[in-house]
Amino acid sequence: MAELEVPAKRARNDGLDGDIVDEEELVPASDVTNAASLISHENDGVAPAPSTARANLSSIMPGWFSEVSPMWPGEAHSLKVEKFLFEGKSDFQDVVVFESATYGRVLVLDGVIQLTQRDECAYQEMITHLPLCSIANPKKVLVIGGGDGGVLREVSRHISIEQIDICEIDKMVVDVAKEFFPDVSIGFDDPRVNLHIGDGVAFLRDVPEGTYDAIIVDSSDPVGPAQALFERPFYQAVARALRPGGVVCTQAESLWLHMPTIKEIVTVCRHTFKGSVNYAWTSMPTYPSGCIGFMLCSTEGPPVDFRHPINPISQQQQLAGEQEKPSSRLPLKYYNSAVHTAAFSLPQFAMDNLESMLTPPLS
Amino acid sequence: MAELEVPAKRARNDGLDGDIVDEEELVPASDVTNAASLISHENDGVAPAPSTARANLSSIMPGWFSEVSPMWPGEAHSLKVEKFLFEGKSDFQDVVVFESATYGRVLVLDGVIQLTQRDECAYQEMITHLPLCSIANPKKVLVIGGGDGGVLREVSRHISIEQIDICEIDKMVVDVAKEFFPDVSIGFDDPRVNLHIGDGVAFLRDVPEGTYDAIIVDSSDPVGPAQALFERPFYQAVARALRPGGVVCTQAESLWLHMPTIKEIVTVCRHTFKGSVNYAWTSMPTYPSGCIGFMLCSTEGPPVDFRHPINPISQQQQLAGEQEKPSSRLPLKYYNSAVHTAAFSLPQFAMDNLESMLTPPLS
Repeated sequence: MAELEVPAKRARNDGLDGDIVDEEELVPASDVTNAASLISHENDGVAPAPSTARANLSSIMPGWFSEVSPMWPGEAHSLKVEKFLFEGKSDFQDVVVFESATYGRVLVLDGVIQLTQRDECAYQEMITHLPLCSIANPKKVLVIGGGDGGVLREVSRHISIEQIDICEIDKMVVDVAKEFFPDVSIGFDDPRVNLHIGDGVAFLRDVPEGTYDAIIVDSSDPVGPAQALFERPFYQAVARALRPGGVVCTQAESLWLHMPTIKEIVTVCRHTFKGSVNYAWTSMPTYPSGCIGFMLCSTEGPPVDFRHPINPISQQQQLAGEQEKPSSRLPLKYYNSAVHTAAFSLPQFAMDNLESMLTPPLS
Repeated sequence: MAELEVPAKRARNDGLDGDIVDEEELVPASDVTNAASLISHENDGVAPAPSTARANLSSIMPGWFSEVSPMWPGEAHSLKVEKFLFEGKSDFQDVVVFESATYGRVLVLDGVIQLTQRDECAYQEMITHLPLCSIANPKKVLVIGGGDGGVLREVSRHISIEQIDICEIDKMVVDVAKEFFPDVSIGFDDPRVNLHIGDGVAFLRDVPEGTYDAIIVDSSDPVGPAQALFERPFYQAVARALRPGGVVCTQAESLWLHMPTIKEIVTVCRHTFKGSVNYAWTSMPTYPSGCIGFMLCSTEGPPVDFRHPINPISQQQQLAGEQEKPSSRLPLKYYNSAVHTAAFSLPQFAMDNLESMLTPPLS
């Protein structure tokens, strides 16, 4: 393929706060060393997260982005790059956007794929509607992370909701999404949305007890800026901010790759959420192992049966949303009520590890 | 990592019918050109299946196998190779076995990963128990393909079964599995198994009408030796070989990647199987998009409700099998009755494409 063009930020006049692309970064991908993979040989596959997506470019496959991480040693998923659209370094992480050959535009944070236009629907719809379709008439919702706006886009389908707060730590993610992912960042157009740029833990500390019906934690992996979002103080702050019988849904890694981490999360949730503690998962082609899981918990109060949605999104709601909320113009691509219930069915190896820790019991 | 060793076949004295590894193949992986990926640049990501797994070795990531195929252009999954164990060329395909860093041993046919020790349980258990747990007391079962023995291992858990025929076209796959994948090829140890090496279409032609309760088609992708297994004459031969109300389960690609192919298969099945036509899927980390689907159809006769298993595998059956059948010593890792039912819940984009073609309707 043609040598990669890295458009200089100013030339695009996109107003984003990324580092200026210097000459060194303008060499063709075929001349770039794959730092991540070289390190991985020395450390038997356990490499630190690469410092930039450019470091993940394989010079044997010019223009292919390879996702190498110590969180999934010994394997890497690669996407063919047509063109880099943005490369920036925020106060928290490296932010990269590229046009891929077959997955549309791709957002990469610290070398890890966060979303692609082709499959983002599965993650955004499931992490949002699994909790919101499990309670009646949610009115106040908080999103922690989710700076791309995709979760907001899905939350806005629910016409009962009156207030949507979001706390994203990295403004660059919001700006990049608005510039390069209009079908995702459209979620910010909903007039019910209040954007707060800051630390999620600090934000929750200032929230009056029992404020929210639902909290959705759309975080990256528990390394880097999202690490605190996987620790006990954060879960306790979430529980405090929820009303009795309120619900939380958090990104909870892969059953195939991260069972020890998942067991730790479930243990913390059992101590923190006295209503119920559930695990669900969805297919997600561009995430490692091709799937991603969610913790779904409720606080003590009116019981919540996550496995049987009582607040389904009907076509009628979608149409109503279409008339009132610009964020709802796109029909659902992945989620439906059958997929909702099916998401809680766990492979036997996961049942063997988690069944005794989940409540109510799966069987 | 150390340069790859390619043990000469005779030195291993494994009795397999692979080509002798010549000097040219003994160069370290780091010196080998990635033929597949080079072609992919010329053809915009649409490369022919590489002629050998060695061609998929990336010289920037020495010892990493990259799966590049025109069936999933623009993306590639890579596994770190510890050591090549076998490379052969049968009359039908290239056969490669390597020890991976984190997925155990891996079987590759014509450059495409067929199974890894880490996740083969999902595919083998689902393609077998979805059909066999959907009918009462299956007695005669035919497996087309499945030369690694994994499906046989799962079929043998069913104590009602009296006869297990298997028709695999490539003897090298059987021999390689018995040499390198004992936990998979253990399926051949069941005394009920009758192995036939030959063409599945020809085998079915000679089968008396209405012979089998269930037929499982464990094929590779519809390119190369398995192509005929995706065409109408084969499905018609399968229907003829099944008893009234008999069931078939075939490997049916990925909802995310191959919807046009899946729609063609469903159309053929609607013309061929007058009982019911269903689609199910499972998570499968080392297959493209991280999932794989199955067509589940029944012939005219006693109705079969695939979505609600009437013949569950109980722990009791597993124990009984354990006492009687060596192939049943390993407990189920992926399949259970909840996962069975959940597998038929399709993402909305799949419902939009397939719902009107499936019978009985999903909703």
